[in-house]
Amino acid sequence: MNIRNPKSLEVCLSPALLSLYSVENYIVVIIDIFRATSSICYGIENGAEAIIPVAQVEECVAYREKGTGYLLAAERDGSVVDGFDFGNSPFSYTAEKVAGKTVVLTTTNGTQALHLSRKAKKVVIGSFLNLTSLSNFLKTQNENILLVCAGWKNNFNLEDTTFAGAVIDHLIADGNYTLDDPALAAFDLYQLAKGDISAYLSKTSHGERMRKLGIEKDIAFCLNVDITTAIPILQGEKLVKLI
Amino acid sequence: MNIRNPKSLEVCLSPALLSLYSVENYIVVIIDIFRATSSICYGIENGAEAIIPVAQVEECVAYREKGTGYLLAAERDGSVVDGFDFGNSPFSYTAEKVAGKTVVLTTTNGTQALHLSRKAKKVVIGSFLNLTSLSNFLKTQNENILLVCAGWKNNFNLEDTTFAGAVIDHLIADGNYTLDDPALAAFDLYQLAKGDISAYLSKTSHGERMRKLGIEKDIAFCLNVDITTAIPILQGEKLVKLI
Repeated sequence: MNIRNPKSLEVCLSPALLSLYSVENYIVVIIDIFRATSSICYGIENGAEAIIPVAQVEECVAYREKGTGYLLAAERDGSVVDGFDFGNSPFSYTAEKVAGKTVVLTTTNGTQALHLSRKAKKVVIGSFLNLTSLSNFLKTQNENILLVCAGWKNNFNLEDTTFAGAVIDHLIADGNYTLDDPALAAFDLYQLAKGDISAYLSKTSHGERMRKLGIEKDIAFCLNVDITTAIPILQGEKLVKLI
Repeated sequence: MNIRNPKSLEVCLSPALLSLYSVENYIVVIIDIFRATSSICYGIENGAEAIIPVAQVEECVAYREKGTGYLLAAERDGSVVDGFDFGNSPFSYTAEKVAGKTVVLTTTNGTQALHLSRKAKKVVIGSFLNLTSLSNFLKTQNENILLVCAGWKNNFNLEDTTFAGAVIDHLIADGNYTLDDPALAAFDLYQLAKGDISAYLSKTSHGERMRKLGIEKDIAFCLNVDITTAIPILQGEKLVKLI
């Protein structure tokens, strides 16, 4: 890291704000903690050849017609859609199920964030599962970094921003970055959260929604820190393992 | 406050996110701490008959042609624009200058937030200057409340969000509200800030810009808590004193 020439470390709190940034000047990290980017990290760690995020169940269906090589993941209201292989639970992304396969994953918030970030220098995927590995990679890059929160229905959510703060906590420990206001806020929120992330996030609106859907186990799993090291990176339309 | 029927207490972090809310269901509070809403609170407190916020210097000029009854406030890059009466410093809004007058105030971020909120049940103006008075008013309303941060260039800023947290801190002390995620974050940030708001906000990007403009005194003034009690409210195009 060049001390005289600090890089920008910024946080985009919602896809609706992404047009305010010139993404081509950044490495972008996509964050959708409950549950898309957690499942993606877990799936790539467990040997999925690629994961293709799409916004709509209908797009997912289209892949069935392209051949039998795809696993199709689609949920509506927390249940696997009829005729699909599985939903968005990270527990579906075990080695037994995904190793060597290409998974087509339906995720509205995350896909929008990915789509809007395609012109970035690189687009990688972050979650608590690969926090340290991701942060160590970012430290080596000597580039401006934009942490993009997928949020909820185009608005801010606490879990994605708190995770952005966790990445910032790692990076500024031994790096020289200029933080924007959203990054300062994310860092501060993470300081409040890091003693017990699960307790801190239990108050969020999204956590509440997830509890109503009966997927508390998914939530708990998505808050496991550093159980994976793989970093998913966007190549064309596919997320693959960064080598 | 009806315990069984909690009202929503929400925070819109940027005008760019305001389309996500149905403002007609809320009392909206416009927040632009550095410096528009602080100056407006001070001006209304000091007897200004009305304050008319406009987005562009050109719109401000148009009021000159409407008659001599207007004081025109316009700044570019922190300096009073040639030919105008004064700029956006709260120190311009003393009783000597504004009592009985109508002020046309140029403020990009604040005007946009106001314009987008016009269909709300009521639109009032908040700043640290009138924090307790504003909060006490909101407590009596038994309505959903949306705290709208004017932000900076359509993005999140720390000072507006921290102030939103201060209002929430007042309201939830003896009210029954449901907070959305931005409100939870704002409340938490205010908890970090409230011991020394000035020190907390000194790290913000906007504070930095203001220091470069040489208007540190304005910043310090805008962080004075409860030095006014007037609540500016939108009536048509004008902000007037709530009676």
